Amino acid sequence: MTRCAACRSRRIKCHSDCILSPYFPSNDPERFASVHKIYTAGHVARMLQQLPVHLRAEAADALYYEAQCRIRDPVYGSVGVISQLHQLICDAQRQLAKAQAEVACFNAQGEEATTQLQ
Amino acid sequence: MTRCAACRSRRIKCHSDCILSPYFPSNDPERFASVHKIYTAGHVARMLQQLPVHLRAEAADALYYEAQCRIRDPVYGSVGVISQLHQLICDAQRQLAKAQAEVACFNAQGEEATTQLQ
Repeated sequence: MTRCAACRSRRIKCHSDCILSPYFPSNDPERFASVHKIYTAGHVARMLQQLPVHLRAEAADALYYEAQCRIRDPVYGSVGVISQLHQLICDAQRQLAKAQAEVACFNAQGEEATTQLQ
Repeated sequence: MTRCAACRSRRIKCHSDCILSPYFPSNDPERFASVHKIYTAGHVARMLQQLPVHLRAEAADALYYEAQCRIRDPVYGSVGVISQLHQLICDAQRQLAKAQAEVACFNAQGEEATTQLQ
């Protein structure tokens, strides 16, 4: 039987009930290496174990994403991404407020013109 | 000497060169408990050790934030927050596009009226 990336990396036999094998296939060793570096394999296994089976794939993906963020940015990790997104939201809201003020101004001018015509 | 939350939790002596003590004070045991639950104390210490001293406080804050996210949402963790923020950005951009289209429409009407008056 092919060992999953987690068992291959740890040089142990990959049993049929290996909890990591569905989420860390042997053809993507980098994926396992990332989460192992940040959380350790045992911790990832424990976190997945505590979840219902149908949610484990999404949890493994999220842990992989967070681990990649932390490897790329060892100081801020995924919190750095969150800060950037907050900044983007602030910028979009500022632009939106400006455009809405312009619309309100045009509407007020339109109403004024209509009143004068009556 | 007062032990930091990390050494108190692990029931070990807190030495003056304890790397965790500046970031996990004894009066906030929940802060240490959170990062310990997700990353383990040893891993947090190693991650901080690899950073320049002036960046460790920010890194400890980010790790605490991420750990809290993962405890609150064991499936998506901080990636859940990132997804919500992406959604907010999409909503803001949609509203902005609508408001900008209205402004463009008013401007076009204004130009048309000016041309007819000439």
